[in-house]
Amino acid sequence: MLLINLKAYKRTIGRGAIEVLEAAERVSEETGIEIGIAPQPTDIYLLSKNAKRVKIFAQHIDPVRNEASTGHILPEAVKEAGAVGTLLNHSERPMTLIEIGEAIEIAKKIGLITVVCVNNDKLAKVIACLSPDYIAVEPPELIGTGISVSKAKPEIVKNSVKSVKSVNEKVKVLVGAGISNKEDVKKALELGADGVLLASAVTKANNFYEKIRELAEGFFYK
Amino acid sequence: MLLINLKAYKRTIGRGAIEVLEAAERVSEETGIEIGIAPQPTDIYLLSKNAKRVKIFAQHIDPVRNEASTGHILPEAVKEAGAVGTLLNHSERPMTLIEIGEAIEIAKKIGLITVVCVNNDKLAKVIACLSPDYIAVEPPELIGTGISVSKAKPEIVKNSVKSVKSVNEKVKVLVGAGISNKEDVKKALELGADGVLLASAVTKANNFYEKIRELAEGFFYK
Amino acid sequence: MLLINLKAYKRTIGRGAIEVLEAAERVSEETGIEIGIAPQPTDIYLLSKNAKRVKIFAQHIDPVRNEASTGHILPEAVKEAGAVGTLLNHSERPMTLIEIGEAIEIAKKIGLITVVCVNNDKLAKVIACLSPDYIAVEPPELIGTGISVSKAKPEIVKNSVKSVKSVNEKVKVLVGAGISNKEDVKKALELGADGVLLASAVTKANNFYEKIRELAEGFFYK
Amino acid sequence: MLLINLKAYKRTIGRGAIEVLEAAERVSEETGIEIGIAPQPTDIYLLSKNAKRVKIFAQHIDPVRNEASTGHILPEAVKEAGAVGTLLNHSERPMTLIEIGEAIEIAKKIGLITVVCVNNDKLAKVIACLSPDYIAVEPPELIGTGISVSKAKPEIVKNSVKSVKSVNEKVKVLVGAGISNKEDVKKALELGADGVLLASAVTKANNFYEKIRELAEGFFYK
Repeated sequence: MLLINLKAYKRTIGRGAIEVLEAAERVSEETGIEIGIAPQPTDIYLLSKNAKRVKIFAQHIDPVRNEASTGHILPEAVKEAGAVGTLLNHSERPMTLIEIGEAIEIAKKIGLITVVCVNNDKLAKVIACLSPDYIAVEPPELIGTGISVSKAKPEIVKNSVKSVKSVNEKVKVLVGAGISNKEDVKKALELGADGVLLASAVTKANNFYEKIRELAEGFFYK
Repeated sequence: MLLINLKAYKRTIGRGAIEVLEAAERVSEETGIEIGIAPQPTDIYLLSKNAKRVKIFAQHIDPVRNEASTGHILPEAVKEAGAVGTLLNHSERPMTLIEIGEAIEIAKKIGLITVVCVNNDKLAKVIACLSPDYIAVEPPELIGTGISVSKAKPEIVKNSVKSVKSVNEKVKVLVGAGISNKEDVKKALELGADGVLLASAVTKANNFYEKIRELAEGFFYK
Repeated sequence: MLLINLKAYKRTIGRGAIEVLEAAERVSEETGIEIGIAPQPTDIYLLSKNAKRVKIFAQHIDPVRNEASTGHILPEAVKEAGAVGTLLNHSERPMTLIEIGEAIEIAKKIGLITVVCVNNDKLAKVIACLSPDYIAVEPPELIGTGISVSKAKPEIVKNSVKSVKSVNEKVKVLVGAGISNKEDVKKALELGADGVLLASAVTKANNFYEKIRELAEGFFYK
Repeated sequence: MLLINLKAYKRTIGRGAIEVLEAAERVSEETGIEIGIAPQPTDIYLLSKNAKRVKIFAQHIDPVRNEASTGHILPEAVKEAGAVGTLLNHSERPMTLIEIGEAIEIAKKIGLITVVCVNNDKLAKVIACLSPDYIAVEPPELIGTGISVSKAKPEIVKNSVKSVKSVNEKVKVLVGAGISNKEDVKKALELGADGVLLASAVTKANNFYEKIRELAEGFFYK
């Protein structure tokens, strides 16, 4: 899977988010690659109504125990708006261990795919015990740098894949941080990853379609 | 203003939020009372597209300084989705003083109405210095109790109105916590409030229209 | 180990903390049971200077990466003041997964014993992957109730011991929440725990010595 | 007042903190200048027992409402250990508005001097409404830079003094961020400040006595 995180980029909200979606739909149709987009919560409904093959993810959900939780993101609301899954514990939105455990549990119950982000291979193994659908390994020091983890720290990718699979074979591993071109994707897959998680390579691209198409081509060598 | 906070109530997401909106539209048309609804962020777009007289608010925005802020709620995204304003610092989503200051500044710049919640009259005065559009005074010990602040602690309402206006006459005061019927609204306005902020009285009502209509009638005596 | 958490009880700061220490020293000498006390950070130095057999723990440390961290609790300062270890991730002071990982790493490097608190057996297993010295299982709904987890939810204790040992045999398991008398301690040990973590049973006791002595006797049956 | 924040600098814990204290005592005796030191919480007791003229401050207190608050810093414990006051809301340890309000209230009740940090002159005015003893204005972008706010942004100092005094004449204003030598202190006082708050200029000094003496001399011109 190629998962595109739109973060809080102003360029890719509303109409901009739709443009990323249209580009992703076209690439997905042309290449058959599974693509996901994680927009701002306010854009989940808009994108979901317009998505065909592309899957829409939330960037975060709160494990709401009490409905009197103003300003928290209700997992059921995210699902209702059309999201099929959610990121959790992104290094820009760290969660407590308790929250991660509860959020995975709620997500499973209501049918949301979970993509739990971790900083390193050690925490990847830890989270594997909670059996999320995906674990995304993103060394925070590389996020947004354009220096891909698959090149700079290949051992983190290898170790993550190995230790996650040793705990639970079904948990898939995404690789993030600094993924910016076809080569980075290819290398990540060669190291055993099941896909990539990225943001600025797409959100700052001159041409959304061309960049997503290039990244998707990284999967062809698999 | 009658501001209805849908919090994280499962009953009032998606289709349920639309039902609250339709009831609010009807009451607003019949009575001329200004009504606002603050739904989950995922429902802002849906409600905004369907709203005519009713104003849609966010429950929270993050003062995003860096676009690499996964899982944070971008003020511009909330605006783009159709919200006209936002709650800030609700006692269920407290913000640091720095965040409140920055969020008000950003909201003003991009044209979002700010409704800053505070626990008591002392903090109401403090926040008045930042000149938000509204200050909503909600003693947290009364939230969700059905015991209205206007009856249980009228002096808090009086003092809040007095101290807010002494700092900045233009800042409007809403009263929240325990507002559940026409009498509570009437009493709040008599004590000098410019409107009310409430949640469970509506979200748990058997009939949204009847409850909103009743609450709106509390404004007739003004 | 019998680990006594003084939390933020006013009765057991300063002179009160010394009284708990003296009682614990006497019991430890009489019974040979290993006893630890986790006071307020301001009392670590005072207790450490007066402790002989009893071990002093911090209630929390921050994984400080940048020395410009005003108001954070520096692990090295805790060590310097005489603490031999620290609690981490207590349900009253939850930490993000990243912080837990970093704090364990720092603690190991500088020689502090780690006691990581978790809510349930599932998270106990997760944390076992990080190889702390102790894992304390405390279902938060029982904390401070006087209803001991060893009686109310024996399966949580059993499962925690089993799953922690399956990951790493060397990690010891403490049981907390509601432990208030000799029977609770006995039952906890019978279920496989290596010790107990408790607070109010001691901090609210009429006589510190008598209560600690009673709890220590729960270990005799082991 | 010359208030020295030791933050989480490893060099100034334990024995290092005592060395700063001894230097500060000597300077205070020689010059008559009022000096305060804010060490790690674990060093409050140690420094207080050894202080004669110098005042010991906490770097942070938590407004503890429930004694079952493991890992929180109890104001009464800080007081018991010998602190005469506390910093609050340092930009490295931001507090919610509610917490600031409660912490000031508790501090006043138990007799701790409050030094509330704010980022700018606007928030200085806001906090003045809560009548703390001191407000320390520290533009976070200058902290630790060695570029003093009194030189780089004199208008922030001037405006802060003016707006704080307009709300409450009794509230004193400290200036922080980048204060590193005699000139910076002198300039801050000329702009109307009642003292300075600083950290790295002292904690990283080759000779604690010489640096503190130099800074104290900045007060002579007043």
